Amino acid sequence: MGQAEIRELEVGYDVPAAVGMHVSDVATPCLIVDLDALERNIAKMGKLAADMGVRHRVHGKMHKSADIALLQQRLGGACGVCCQKVSEAEAFVRGGISDVMVTNQVTDPPKIDRLARLPLRGAAISVCVDDPANVAALSEAAVRHGTVLDCLVEIDCGQRRCGVVGIPDVIEIARQIDDAPGLEFAGLQSYHGSAQHFATFAERQAAIEAVIAQTRETVDALEAAGLPCKSVTGAGTGTFEFEGRSGLYTELQCGSYAFMDADYGRLTDADGARLDRGQWENALFILTSIMSVAGEGRAVCDAGLKVQSVDSGLPVIHGREDVEYTGCSDEHGVIRDPGNVLKLNDRLRLIPGHCDPTCNIHDWYVGVRGDVVECVWPVSARGKAW
Amino acid sequence: MGQAEIRELEVGYDVPAAVGMHVSDVATPCLIVDLDALERNIAKMGKLAADMGVRHRVHGKMHKSADIALLQQRLGGACGVCCQKVSEAEAFVRGGISDVMVTNQVTDPPKIDRLARLPLRGAAISVCVDDPANVAALSEAAVRHGTVLDCLVEIDCGQRRCGVVGIPDVIEIARQIDDAPGLEFAGLQSYHGSAQHFATFAERQAAIEAVIAQTRETVDALEAAGLPCKSVTGAGTGTFEFEGRSGLYTELQCGSYAFMDADYGRLTDADGARLDRGQWENALFILTSIMSVAGEGRAVCDAGLKVQSVDSGLPVIHGREDVEYTGCSDEHGVIRDPGNVLKLNDRLRLIPGHCDPTCNIHDWYVGVRGDVVECVWPVSARGKAW
Repeated sequence: MGQAEIRELEVGYDVPAAVGMHVSDVATPCLIVDLDALERNIAKMGKLAADMGVRHRVHGKMHKSADIALLQQRLGGACGVCCQKVSEAEAFVRGGISDVMVTNQVTDPPKIDRLARLPLRGAAISVCVDDPANVAALSEAAVRHGTVLDCLVEIDCGQRRCGVVGIPDVIEIARQIDDAPGLEFAGLQSYHGSAQHFATFAERQAAIEAVIAQTRETVDALEAAGLPCKSVTGAGTGTFEFEGRSGLYTELQCGSYAFMDADYGRLTDADGARLDRGQWENALFILTSIMSVAGEGRAVCDAGLKVQSVDSGLPVIHGREDVEYTGCSDEHGVIRDPGNVLKLNDRLRLIPGHCDPTCNIHDWYVGVRGDVVECVWPVSARGKAW
Repeated sequence: MGQAEIRELEVGYDVPAAVGMHVSDVATPCLIVDLDALERNIAKMGKLAADMGVRHRVHGKMHKSADIALLQQRLGGACGVCCQKVSEAEAFVRGGISDVMVTNQVTDPPKIDRLARLPLRGAAISVCVDDPANVAALSEAAVRHGTVLDCLVEIDCGQRRCGVVGIPDVIEIARQIDDAPGLEFAGLQSYHGSAQHFATFAERQAAIEAVIAQTRETVDALEAAGLPCKSVTGAGTGTFEFEGRSGLYTELQCGSYAFMDADYGRLTDADGARLDRGQWENALFILTSIMSVAGEGRAVCDAGLKVQSVDSGLPVIHGREDVEYTGCSDEHGVIRDPGNVLKLNDRLRLIPGHCDPTCNIHDWYVGVRGDVVECVWPVSARGKAW
């Protein structure tokens, strides 16, 4: 079957590509995944976690793809998945993941009910708690369905978002969990989200050293209260080596390392090198086409706010120094092109500013090996915000 | 059937609400539409356009909903829909809209082919052109399918994005269209997107007076060249009264007026009053629940970057002066709550910063009349970016 027949057969309204298609025929704008780069990132992180002697529970909130989570289990030794919402957890269980942690509070009664039903589908389910009132509600639902939920107390270790403040309150909630039928006290969730994005190695190190000290003190106090932590979990792509080598954390929750993005790429490591030059490869791109060259010194591409989130900055054009993405409106990207080198229908790969909310807009990942489409994966938990 | 049975029957994994449900039972976060406010906005704009003697082609790129577009035709006298992508046009034709304009360039050959096939489904289709090379490609496709495409020349009237610069080039492309089999020269697309968002009436007026002057000169030159413009189309929610009263524009393309958002709401009218106090009502909200109150002086809600675009600023909490949405991460919104008045599972309505890219993330509009769900509309062109 030739390229034209492949396109005619499958591509159009609902899907941007078909297996076997050359990447130059894929409908733009869409997300493409460089499978070689993805697999190398996954294998590398798996080896790092193994060398540090910690589990890696990959963060599925980043890619929202059961296919990629399964790949992370197979190639990277991941112990399971974490995610942020009950509907995401349902999507991962549906997709064949049997160990799912919701790294977030679930407080709405109907959502608690759905969460408590998930173990009936054969999955180990864990969830975070930061409010005493939540314990009774989770317990009641687990008992009603005859299931067990592993509960971790989330502590506020510097993010100033969710999480319990103060060791006495942590012990109090942990004890309530330990006493509650249908619940198991599993340990601590201690994650500093904003520290992931501090620009330099030294800033991230200083922040996480404080996190580790606070978390250690809390773990010790729980232990002294007869509430040992089976799991101490947290960390992300910006800081995981600090938590991983702490001797305290038992589990990492990295997500963005698998795809990378422009925001993470700008961070620097201990040697001052960018994270996307050496440590991690860009595996996720927005494939875009030039649709107007009417203006002198600029071109306009077909990738705007409807295919990416610019909360962490504009996308970067991959592999090009001569042109720059300088402006973003709903359906357009304006590209500075001082040499007028871009022509109508030229294609570019954009590295998104922030991968997580960008992936959440798309229905499909077009997986490419070299220049050929090898798979078209659904973004299985796309839009699952409940 | 009681509330519990309604929820049990329908709500869960794939849809946030069911018809007949009380709004307090709708799964959060989700988009809710105040149907009374929406209908008043639609009727008001219909009357304004009629009074000014211009057509109103509603911009479907904003809501991406065939249901709402049909409502705009029925209650607001809209002559049809405009949108930005071929896949959006397909969604609107599929949804029963019979006059669709793509207010954008379509240059990729497979997309041109799909566009040229759309009239076979009984819809009048128009599209913008800003490049001579595009004319031949559109013509060839229309001839191949035995269809007619109405083509408008897009001029750059100040946005510095797409659009032809210079009257001689406009005339040249218009003549090529006029000569091309399968194409009809329909007039000018003259839209200044960024001017829609200039803060004051005076700034917007000054910008659009320049747009009108430039457009008039272009129309006159085309007329003199034997290429009369049947349609002069453009304008948006921020400026439509200038274009509408110009005596030059024949058609408006307003979108955001129907829903409003925080960014448009901040603009001021001729009397210095905000656009969302008097002229247009907020009809679109993100319904969100409080999921953590562990921190002193703040609460955390379940609506973050995965349910909204913050490109035009953070959302505003509707009807509340005592609490403020101050920070947004992937799945969380941090709310300043100095009085600690918010409790777990309290619900708030957020006015999104920018409605268009926010709607594009969601699969459903939950339409409420008062406190009861009246409809659950699919966001029919969601993710249709091709």
